[in-house]
Amino acid sequence: MKNKLSLRDFPSAQKRREFLETELNIKLDNVGCFSFTEDQAVGRNIENLIGATQIPLGIAGPLLIHSSVILRESSTEGSLTNVRISNKSSTLRLRPEGLRDSSLVAQNDRTGKKYYLPLATTEGALVASASRGCKAINQSGGAEVLVEEVGVTRGPVFKVKGIREGIQIKQWIKDHFADLAKVAETTSHHLRLKKMGCRLVGRNLFARFYYDCQDAMGMNMATIATEQAVSLIEQGTEARCISIAGNFDIDKKPGWLNFISGRGKRVWAESVLKKEIVKSVLKTTPEKIAEVVYRKCQIGSAMAGSLGFNAHFANVVAAVFAATGQDLAHVAEGSLGITTAEVLTNGDLYFSIYLPSLMCGTVGGGTHLPAQQEALSIMGVKGTGDSVKYAQILGSAILAVEVSLMASLAEGSLAKAHQKLGRGQKSKIKTQK
Amino acid sequence: MKNKLSLRDFPSAQKRREFLETELNIKLDNVGCFSFTEDQAVGRNIENLIGATQIPLGIAGPLLIHSSVILRESSTEGSLTNVRISNKSSTLRLRPEGLRDSSLVAQNDRTGKKYYLPLATTEGALVASASRGCKAINQSGGAEVLVEEVGVTRGPVFKVKGIREGIQIKQWIKDHFADLAKVAETTSHHLRLKKMGCRLVGRNLFARFYYDCQDAMGMNMATIATEQAVSLIEQGTEARCISIAGNFDIDKKPGWLNFISGRGKRVWAESVLKKEIVKSVLKTTPEKIAEVVYRKCQIGSAMAGSLGFNAHFANVVAAVFAATGQDLAHVAEGSLGITTAEVLTNGDLYFSIYLPSLMCGTVGGGTHLPAQQEALSIMGVKGTGDSVKYAQILGSAILAVEVSLMASLAEGSLAKAHQKLGRGQKSKIKTQK
Amino acid sequence: MKNKLSLRDFPSAQKRREFLETELNIKLDNVGCFSFTEDQAVGRNIENLIGATQIPLGIAGPLLIHSSVILRESSTEGSLTNVRISNKSSTLRLRPEGLRDSSLVAQNDRTGKKYYLPLATTEGALVASASRGCKAINQSGGAEVLVEEVGVTRGPVFKVKGIREGIQIKQWIKDHFADLAKVAETTSHHLRLKKMGCRLVGRNLFARFYYDCQDAMGMNMATIATEQAVSLIEQGTEARCISIAGNFDIDKKPGWLNFISGRGKRVWAESVLKKEIVKSVLKTTPEKIAEVVYRKCQIGSAMAGSLGFNAHFANVVAAVFAATGQDLAHVAEGSLGITTAEVLTNGDLYFSIYLPSLMCGTVGGGTHLPAQQEALSIMGVKGTGDSVKYAQILGSAILAVEVSLMASLAEGSLAKAHQKLGRGQKSKIKTQK
Amino acid sequence: MKNKLSLRDFPSAQKRREFLETELNIKLDNVGCFSFTEDQAVGRNIENLIGATQIPLGIAGPLLIHSSVILRESSTEGSLTNVRISNKSSTLRLRPEGLRDSSLVAQNDRTGKKYYLPLATTEGALVASASRGCKAINQSGGAEVLVEEVGVTRGPVFKVKGIREGIQIKQWIKDHFADLAKVAETTSHHLRLKKMGCRLVGRNLFARFYYDCQDAMGMNMATIATEQAVSLIEQGTEARCISIAGNFDIDKKPGWLNFISGRGKRVWAESVLKKEIVKSVLKTTPEKIAEVVYRKCQIGSAMAGSLGFNAHFANVVAAVFAATGQDLAHVAEGSLGITTAEVLTNGDLYFSIYLPSLMCGTVGGGTHLPAQQEALSIMGVKGTGDSVKYAQILGSAILAVEVSLMASLAEGSLAKAHQKLGRGQKSKIKTQK
Repeated sequence: MKNKLSLRDFPSAQKRREFLETELNIKLDNVGCFSFTEDQAVGRNIENLIGATQIPLGIAGPLLIHSSVILRESSTEGSLTNVRISNKSSTLRLRPEGLRDSSLVAQNDRTGKKYYLPLATTEGALVASASRGCKAINQSGGAEVLVEEVGVTRGPVFKVKGIREGIQIKQWIKDHFADLAKVAETTSHHLRLKKMGCRLVGRNLFARFYYDCQDAMGMNMATIATEQAVSLIEQGTEARCISIAGNFDIDKKPGWLNFISGRGKRVWAESVLKKEIVKSVLKTTPEKIAEVVYRKCQIGSAMAGSLGFNAHFANVVAAVFAATGQDLAHVAEGSLGITTAEVLTNGDLYFSIYLPSLMCGTVGGGTHLPAQQEALSIMGVKGTGDSVKYAQILGSAILAVEVSLMASLAEGSLAKAHQKLGRGQKSKIKTQK
Repeated sequence: MKNKLSLRDFPSAQKRREFLETELNIKLDNVGCFSFTEDQAVGRNIENLIGATQIPLGIAGPLLIHSSVILRESSTEGSLTNVRISNKSSTLRLRPEGLRDSSLVAQNDRTGKKYYLPLATTEGALVASASRGCKAINQSGGAEVLVEEVGVTRGPVFKVKGIREGIQIKQWIKDHFADLAKVAETTSHHLRLKKMGCRLVGRNLFARFYYDCQDAMGMNMATIATEQAVSLIEQGTEARCISIAGNFDIDKKPGWLNFISGRGKRVWAESVLKKEIVKSVLKTTPEKIAEVVYRKCQIGSAMAGSLGFNAHFANVVAAVFAATGQDLAHVAEGSLGITTAEVLTNGDLYFSIYLPSLMCGTVGGGTHLPAQQEALSIMGVKGTGDSVKYAQILGSAILAVEVSLMASLAEGSLAKAHQKLGRGQKSKIKTQK
Repeated sequence: MKNKLSLRDFPSAQKRREFLETELNIKLDNVGCFSFTEDQAVGRNIENLIGATQIPLGIAGPLLIHSSVILRESSTEGSLTNVRISNKSSTLRLRPEGLRDSSLVAQNDRTGKKYYLPLATTEGALVASASRGCKAINQSGGAEVLVEEVGVTRGPVFKVKGIREGIQIKQWIKDHFADLAKVAETTSHHLRLKKMGCRLVGRNLFARFYYDCQDAMGMNMATIATEQAVSLIEQGTEARCISIAGNFDIDKKPGWLNFISGRGKRVWAESVLKKEIVKSVLKTTPEKIAEVVYRKCQIGSAMAGSLGFNAHFANVVAAVFAATGQDLAHVAEGSLGITTAEVLTNGDLYFSIYLPSLMCGTVGGGTHLPAQQEALSIMGVKGTGDSVKYAQILGSAILAVEVSLMASLAEGSLAKAHQKLGRGQKSKIKTQK
Repeated sequence: MKNKLSLRDFPSAQKRREFLETELNIKLDNVGCFSFTEDQAVGRNIENLIGATQIPLGIAGPLLIHSSVILRESSTEGSLTNVRISNKSSTLRLRPEGLRDSSLVAQNDRTGKKYYLPLATTEGALVASASRGCKAINQSGGAEVLVEEVGVTRGPVFKVKGIREGIQIKQWIKDHFADLAKVAETTSHHLRLKKMGCRLVGRNLFARFYYDCQDAMGMNMATIATEQAVSLIEQGTEARCISIAGNFDIDKKPGWLNFISGRGKRVWAESVLKKEIVKSVLKTTPEKIAEVVYRKCQIGSAMAGSLGFNAHFANVVAAVFAATGQDLAHVAEGSLGITTAEVLTNGDLYFSIYLPSLMCGTVGGGTHLPAQQEALSIMGVKGTGDSVKYAQILGSAILAVEVSLMASLAEGSLAKAHQKLGRGQKSKIKTQK
């Protein structure tokens, strides 16, 4: 392959496609089918643009959701620490109030509100399963969901001389928290340093900065802000930053630190599924579902050494993330968490999911792209002020899909569903009326 | 929201979009822009289709790859077990031979072969970073990559009366391996039961079936085959299957069982980066990169309790998966693994990545969709016979992007790159000439 | 402190005590109270002997045990692999037969056999709790226990040039398994190489040797044997051993590799506790105990990121290990495992424990010391031929103590028991009649 | 076995031994050799006493230690939170000051202080290895050690109705922290509630109480105090405690929560080993030791899915714990942690250990027994005021033994040392002059 001309010599996606078509003797017509302008994507979301991938988009729901928000909770593994309240943050304090879906709370305190779920996927049966889960939840009174904003983290690693110096630098950082926050916050009006912590091991000092990035997922903002903070630390101490990202974040990898201390948003969702509904909609019993969850998600996950004590959070996280312009690598974090189920004394089924570390946003990343904006509009989510609402809907969607899959497993129909829907036959599974 | 008409009442994506547009008072023009036919996707990849998500697609590379295949290795955590060689499999044995990119081996034993990398992402800088990594690797002689086919797993959980019965059933399963393989293999000509194992705890018996599904990722095939095997086990013993998927797979969740015993394909890739190239292309030194990898991926990941001892495997896995129709939930598995770097005595940099559990295929899932087919053609990958080659290219791409990010971290330019490329300015980072 | 004379200048424990008494102005009369001869311990178990620690020894039980042995099972995470059967091992095959407590099987097939439990501990309430657990189990028909001999492991790490060489060396090792076994087995008549495996990452090749060391725990034997095997590998290949112990063993640390692939012995024990006995002896109900186990050992351990899904295996392992001359550092492995409980349809309580990695022996280590020999005799365990029996009794003891603690937690009496028994009042808790 | 008489019918250890001797036809002379009185142990450390285990006690060192204490640091994973400072604690504040080895700081600021190490073990070579490590460290200027008091934890699990109630109860707990502290602290003058946290999942609310128990390890005190706090929570809310110990402690099991958030005491120790000393005393080079640590403790432990990134912390923890009356089940926590090594630019070797979760005390448990008191006196540790000093010495001992083992591995002499010292030959390894 002669390489005298290279991709970067071509100014447009079309020219690059033509180059590849000639070079590789292939056709790229479909990749060329997209509706965003190059300016919308190039230099922001992509380089060397040649077009777009098209992932089929289906719609599930609607799903009835009752939501709550934890406005000011800020804890690592569980310390009941108040967050720093600076003058600046007291202004910001208004933001979460606005952020809270107040009309939802006001109008729907008892009745909740319904949302459609856009799922971009190539896994047959997922959308149908989501719809079935929604139906069972709706008929049982809806899902209850709670979101806690933990903050996006960035975790640099510094080299220090040893323990004594390391602990002094740790103390210096603690003493200069306000200064670090100040320089970090100069980088964006939308970013606030919520808290931070350090951990020393040998000649390595790790810091973990937690940022409130408002409605952005915020990883880039956090990196840029941390760079300033790191600069200040290097000026004020003997520490030398080896890597702005020292895996103490821990970004795009599964890790217990995120499970225990949280990252992005923590999400809880639950529903009490009525016994009759479990029978009529899900074709099984509360007892059977509870047994599947126990033997699979509790015992099975323990035997597998997993950080995911669930069935398939990752499926829903990936499908909604793809539809709405999130960073798909954060499926790693989104696969963590616990599903529980219990049969109540009245015979109904309590079912819950817990995600310790959901990384998402409604501004930034790919959220601004046209198709992604439309997917967000399907969820009833605006860019500004709605990131918590987004997490609420996604958490509830995960709940619905977990419910439906557990029921399929309990009734023994998983393989059948996939046989029907994953192998080229038209779906006969009924979605929600 | 009145729900008298529901989504399923509409026969086509367009009608469903219109319903949603009216119902939610939104516009869905962009979602409607796609080039596959509904028949290609509905009933196979999606239900309740309303259109498609468009994820920007960029191109990196080319990347020079030297590849090897482990044809018959079959080990769990390391037992040197020969695989079962049935009459059937001796025919199949030919397949991997064909599978191996023999022209590549023949023609390029010393010179390797170059491949382009299609990346669907909304994370600015990723494609540019990949290209830079490719350039550094190419100028150093290319990447070496090795793929081992472990097999896709399905892990049902059975309820047993207790230890004594459990161990008898385990023995029954062992004694009837050939029968189980036979019934499992009736479900598809493309599937072979490679091996299996059981683990008992209390009244729970977990089995883990490993399948060779040729070029398919194979999760659905594995489920359908396992259903037959489970049926046989239930007929032959007192075991009762509680869930065909008992998290002993362990599918779409991070777990040590996959890390240790492997799942899908195991991939190793490496390159020896010349000292001068590290300086000229990556703007840093081998020593600095090795230090970043050590303090970040080894020490930092340990401190974070992670199964990912790498920087961002998940980024590349997600981007190539999205482009080529893979199941995006398998980013969870794809985020596992280890990056290592060492400065050699001559001053060059040895750099490697290891993925224990890569789930991918070149047939099935979303691979058949038109845009996805085109992305595969960019990689030079056909549907049949090329799944190992696909894993080779993806593994090498991960290597390239890890190299480039580590260099960015070492030279302290990560935030700058993201500032330039993730925030709306046109890229000025040069891609490979 | 002047250091002209040092400890090694003194020939006996008494002289060393006198040196320390003078040097530090302390008294060491009690440390001097021991009944073994210096020759029994020095040069074998200890250096620089000054005397002995005395740990109070209590007795619990008896406990009724029904036992089974897996004689030939040899699996890693679950591959149903037959063990290598050499001529030599076919002789050895007789050993396990003798090893099996055949009189127990013959005479007590229905009735089991009773054993006393020696516990060396300073934790008040542990012995009383064990006795209570024994009583509840005995009255319910006894404990069922199963032991699988996995083998002791040693896991060296080799440096290799890279992937291609690494995989060749891995293949070389596989091809020379018989030779490696041969040289390893020259080091002891009591050692057999059962199986082994390799794992490559970057320039590191890890091997995991599994040895049958008959009745010894075998860590030292395994090290010596592995040294020979490593030597052969270094002669036959370019691999260079960096450390004979490369943490792929993984010895004296908690690790998923041991949990998943096993190490030493795997032990399962269970009992069906009658509803009335739970009430009369344990003062609570099956439902309450099952709920404690579920919320604590399944959900709580998941939330804590633990490899121990149990209450306190470590307590019993430590106490019996201390009494019987085991290596106390192996409490790390002994703390791994899962406790489960389920209420059966008749209202009785199924209760089980599973230890994936119990390292113990009845010869070697500290087992030969006089007091330790007496503790073994209390268990009815001889040095030769009884290591499986030892594991059976220890596993059953763990079951008994887990049962009792879960009952205490369920009835809310844990703090009370510790208040009574851990703070200087005479015990009033009744032990078994 | 007739069971008309049972163990509890006998009033003394001697009578119980006689019963067992008759019942089992064995001899228990050696078990009867002990120097504590029955009153010292029975009802406090043991029930059904029959005597004592004798574990050989050796002496290593002395070891030169420079120490620091973190007096007020109180962080979970890294939040820089000030501890609660009540009136009561301001008095207590004086305690740590007294606790600090002030003479050591005053007299030995530059020179440090030397300590002997009592090791109770049956593993040949351990004491000799410790002495060798001490020698190398001493000749290089001594060990630097740092201890942080995290606090002993108790983690009950409550059942709640669901998310909404759970979060309200969490808030109630936060709001009533002072009241909870008050009732908890009524149970002992020596206990203070430092901080606490909660974590909700489904219908389970976990709390984690961190206590300062002065010089006691404090597990029993923590349980009794938590019982009071739990009682208050149950009175004030609808929560129902299912288990006072809900594995959110997480006690006597390995778990990431303890690794990340700490438990008991956190300990760091380090030494810069001079190049010449590495050669003359340890018979190897800094480069070789650093390579062993890297390939074994970093890469090997990652491959094994371990929480122990070290060689054998557990050996030293177990041996010193056994000698000094600690709870041996806490070896599980003591096996966690990280060893690092780096060659400095001047060619010397930086070597460090980090233990996130060391559970120990100098009062309570078995520390008061006569032989254990003598072992503490060898360390120069008094019961009251010296628990931090104890952790300093133990941490430094771990450092010394890690250094020595890594050197043995690097020079390839591990098997030889064990062959000499673990198999009945008199030791010829020279201990420190």
